[in-house]
Amino acid sequence: MSLHLGAFVQALGGTLIGASPETRVERIAPLEQAGPRDLSFLSHARYQHLLQTTRAGCVIVSPALQAAAQARGACIVVLDPYAYFAKATQLWRQHHDPVKPRGIHPSAVVDPEAQVDPTAWVGPLCVVGRGARIGADTVLASRVTLGDRCVVGDRCILHSGVVIGADGFGFAPEQGRWVKIEQLGAVRIGNDVEIGANTCIDRGALEDTVIEDGVKLDNLIQVGHNVHIGAHSAMAGCVGIAGSARIGAHCTVGGGAIVLGHLELADHVHVSAATVVTRSLNRPGQYTGMFPIDDNARWEKNAATLKQLHGLRDRVKALEQALKAAHNNNG
Amino acid sequence: MSLHLGAFVQALGGTLIGASPETRVERIAPLEQAGPRDLSFLSHARYQHLLQTTRAGCVIVSPALQAAAQARGACIVVLDPYAYFAKATQLWRQHHDPVKPRGIHPSAVVDPEAQVDPTAWVGPLCVVGRGARIGADTVLASRVTLGDRCVVGDRCILHSGVVIGADGFGFAPEQGRWVKIEQLGAVRIGNDVEIGANTCIDRGALEDTVIEDGVKLDNLIQVGHNVHIGAHSAMAGCVGIAGSARIGAHCTVGGGAIVLGHLELADHVHVSAATVVTRSLNRPGQYTGMFPIDDNARWEKNAATLKQLHGLRDRVKALEQALKAAHNNNG
Amino acid sequence: MSLHLGAFVQALGGTLIGASPETRVERIAPLEQAGPRDLSFLSHARYQHLLQTTRAGCVIVSPALQAAAQARGACIVVLDPYAYFAKATQLWRQHHDPVKPRGIHPSAVVDPEAQVDPTAWVGPLCVVGRGARIGADTVLASRVTLGDRCVVGDRCILHSGVVIGADGFGFAPEQGRWVKIEQLGAVRIGNDVEIGANTCIDRGALEDTVIEDGVKLDNLIQVGHNVHIGAHSAMAGCVGIAGSARIGAHCTVGGGAIVLGHLELADHVHVSAATVVTRSLNRPGQYTGMFPIDDNARWEKNAATLKQLHGLRDRVKALEQALKAAHNNNG
Repeated sequence: MSLHLGAFVQALGGTLIGASPETRVERIAPLEQAGPRDLSFLSHARYQHLLQTTRAGCVIVSPALQAAAQARGACIVVLDPYAYFAKATQLWRQHHDPVKPRGIHPSAVVDPEAQVDPTAWVGPLCVVGRGARIGADTVLASRVTLGDRCVVGDRCILHSGVVIGADGFGFAPEQGRWVKIEQLGAVRIGNDVEIGANTCIDRGALEDTVIEDGVKLDNLIQVGHNVHIGAHSAMAGCVGIAGSARIGAHCTVGGGAIVLGHLELADHVHVSAATVVTRSLNRPGQYTGMFPIDDNARWEKNAATLKQLHGLRDRVKALEQALKAAHNNNG
Repeated sequence: MSLHLGAFVQALGGTLIGASPETRVERIAPLEQAGPRDLSFLSHARYQHLLQTTRAGCVIVSPALQAAAQARGACIVVLDPYAYFAKATQLWRQHHDPVKPRGIHPSAVVDPEAQVDPTAWVGPLCVVGRGARIGADTVLASRVTLGDRCVVGDRCILHSGVVIGADGFGFAPEQGRWVKIEQLGAVRIGNDVEIGANTCIDRGALEDTVIEDGVKLDNLIQVGHNVHIGAHSAMAGCVGIAGSARIGAHCTVGGGAIVLGHLELADHVHVSAATVVTRSLNRPGQYTGMFPIDDNARWEKNAATLKQLHGLRDRVKALEQALKAAHNNNG
Repeated sequence: MSLHLGAFVQALGGTLIGASPETRVERIAPLEQAGPRDLSFLSHARYQHLLQTTRAGCVIVSPALQAAAQARGACIVVLDPYAYFAKATQLWRQHHDPVKPRGIHPSAVVDPEAQVDPTAWVGPLCVVGRGARIGADTVLASRVTLGDRCVVGDRCILHSGVVIGADGFGFAPEQGRWVKIEQLGAVRIGNDVEIGANTCIDRGALEDTVIEDGVKLDNLIQVGHNVHIGAHSAMAGCVGIAGSARIGAHCTVGGGAIVLGHLELADHVHVSAATVVTRSLNRPGQYTGMFPIDDNARWEKNAATLKQLHGLRDRVKALEQALKAAHNNNG
C-alpha cells in the first residue's frame, strides 16, 4: 500500500516543501513510530519537540512550525494539520479500499416493508424492522438491529451490535408491581451520525427519540427514550443518558459520564469523564464531578473524613464563633 | 390509528366526563404536545399547572383534580392516572398491532434439545442453547443469546442483543496466571421479567444466577455470576452487579450504579444513580454516593482540597485543642 | 453426573485422606450448599469456621487446615486449594462435556479470506472479516464480530456479542463539525485471552490495539483504539479504557472503573471499582477514588459542604492565623 505525496496535496491542498510530489508514502504514522517512507503530522505546538527525533519522511505542519519542520526534512504546510491528517486517512482508505459495499447482505433479516436506499449497506446478520428507513450511503456494519419505524439519515455509520429502537424503560408502579408503558414512539437519526459498537438508543414512549445531524457516539453508550441530542455533539464510551434528557448542539460528554433524566444541557456544554449530571446546565462551559484518585490508604482516610464533612464544617463555624467571642471579651 | 374514548373506560375502568364515549382519540400524548384529538394524562399534582395550557382532547386525572380538569374539557377520572396511562398504552398497542408473533424465526439458531413454549417468540438471529427453556408468551426480540440450560419464565421480554448465560468471570490466580473456573451453573429467570438491550446475565459458577418474578432491567446492565435479584426490583441502564451479590425484592438501582460482589441489599433498598455500593445495606431506604457536579474550575479546587481532607480534620482538631487550652489558661 | 474422588487426585495431584478413591462425587459445591455426595473447597483460612457446619462429603484444603478438615471427614490436601478447585471444575467439565466443537457453524458469516484454525470454533451467527485470523482451540461463542485483519491467538474464548475491531472513536474538529479519522489499524489479541459478553475492543487509528497473552476481560468493557493491555491483566465488568492508554502486566481493574486516554499504568497496578484514573500510575499498588455511599440525607449534607470545601480550608487557615496572632499578642 502506498500513495505519492502529490496525491495528498492535489486532493486536500497544502504546500509540499522539501520533497518531490512523486515521493511514495507507505504508511501514515504517528511521529514517534514514523519511518523515512511514512507521512506523519504535528497536531499541536506542544509536540514540537518530537520534530527533533522523528524519522518521518514528511510531516504535516502549521505555518507557524514550517521553519522548524523544514530544518529537518520534507513537510506539508496547512492551516489545520489535525483536520488535514483526518482527511489524509480518508484519502488513504479510499485509495486502498475503493469498493464501498452496497445493498443488503444475504444473511441480514430486512422486513419487506423497510426502506433501504440502494446506496446504503446492510451488513451481515443485521435486523431491520417494519417501516424502518435507511438513507443514502449509510452503513450498518454487522449484527445491527434497527427497530420498526426507526429512521437513519444519509452517510451514517452504525457499528456492530448497535441496537436502535428497543423499548424505552417505562413502567408505572402499581401495588408493588410494574405495569409496562408500551413504547409507541420511534428513533429518528439525522445525517452524518456515527454510532459505536453495542451502543443502544431506545425508542420514545409517546414521541420519538431524536439524534440530530453530525452526532458521534462511541461504544457501549445508553441513550434512553425521548432523549434529544443536538447536532454535532459527541460522546465517549460507556456514557448513559437517561430518558427525556435534552442535550444541546456541539456538546461533548466524557467516557462513563451519566446524565440524569429530564435535564437540559445548553449548546457547547462539556461534561468531563465519569461525571454525573444531576441538574440542568444552562451555560456553556466545562463541568466536572469525580472523586480524585489516590493511593488506597490515603483515599480511605479522606473518604472516612468525607462522611463527617458536614460536622467538620460545623466545628469550624463553632471555632470561628469562639474566637470571635474571645476577641470581644479581650477587646 | 385511532380508538374511541369508550374503549378505554370499557377495558380499563374510570369515569369519562365531558365527552361522548364515541369521541375518537388519534394519539396518546404528553400534556405539552397533546392536541384536541389526543388523550393525555396528569400523573402527579405537581404538573397541575399544565392543565391550564394543554390542548389535549381528554385528560386522565385523579379524583382530586377532577374539578380542575373538568373546568377545561373532557377527562377520565381514575384512582391512579399513571398506572391507567400505562394500561392505556397497552390497549393502544393491542388494538393497532394485535398480531403477536409466535414460534421461531427461521434465521434463529435453536438447539434441538431446547424447549420453547409454542406461544413464545424467538426473533430473528437469536441463539438458544441446549437444554434452555422458554416459557409461555415470552418474547426474545432479535439477536438474543440464551445459553445452555438457562431458563426464562412466562411473559418475559428480552430485548435485542441480550446475552443470558455467558460464563461468569471466575479465575484462580496461580503463579501470575489465571486458571479458569468453569462456570457449571446456569441462569434462572422468573415470570414477567423484562431485560433491556445488550444487557448480560452470567451463568453461576456452581449454583445458578437467579432473577425473580417481575424484575425489570434496562439496557447495558451487567449481572455477574451467582447474583440473586429479588422480585419486582428494577435497575436503570449501565448498572453493574458484581458476582454473588444478593439484591432484595422491590429494590431500585439508578443508572450507572455499581454493587460490589458478595453484598446483600435488603428489600426496598433504593440506590441512587452512579452510586457505588461497597457494603451490605440491611435497612430499606435511599442510599447515595456521588461526587456533586460543579463547573470545572471550582471542582478542581475542591478536589485538590479533598485529597488533604484528613489533614484538614487534624488541623481543626488542633485548633479546638489550642482554643480549649487558651480558654483554660485565661479562665 | 458424577466422578470418583480418585479421578481428581489422579489428574490434579493432592493427597486424599479419609475416603476411598472409589467414592463418587455428584457435584462440586460451595461449603454452605454442599451435601454428603459433593466435593467442596476451603479457599482461605478465614472461612475455616465453615468446616464445623458443612455437610460436604470431601473438602479440598491446604496442609495447614488438614487436621481441622480431617476431624470432620474426608479431605484432599493440596498446596493451593483455590487453584485446585479451579482445575477440578475443568476436569468436571471435560468429563461430562468432552466433545469440544470445532469448525464453523453454518450460520456464521466468515470471509473467504479469513484464516480459521481447524481446531477453533466459530459459533452461530458470528461474523469474521477479511484477513482476520483465529488461532488453535480458540472459541467464538455466538454472535461475535471479529473485524477485518484482526487477529486472535490460541486457546482464547470470546463470549457472545463481543465486537473486536469496530472503528476507534477518532474525529478532528473543523468549523464545528467532526471529520472522521479513518481507523487504519487492527486489533491483535494474544493467547489464552478471555473476553466477556458484549465487550468491545476497537481497532487502532494508525497502529494496532494490542491485548497480550493471558488477559481476562469481563462483560460490557470498552477498550478504545491503540490501547495496550499487558499480559495476565484482568478487568471486571463495565470498565472503560480510553484510547492509547497503556496498561501494564498483572494489573487488575475493578468494575465500572474508567482509565482516561494516553495514560500509563505500571505492572501490578490495581485500580479499585468505579475509580477514575486521571493520571499515569507509575508504581505498583492499589489506587482508589470513589465517593463513599451513605444514606441519602447524610450524603446530601456532605455533598453540599463538599462544594465549599476549598472555602472551608481557607477558613481553617484564617483560624490558624488568628490563633497564632492572638497567641503572639498574649505572649
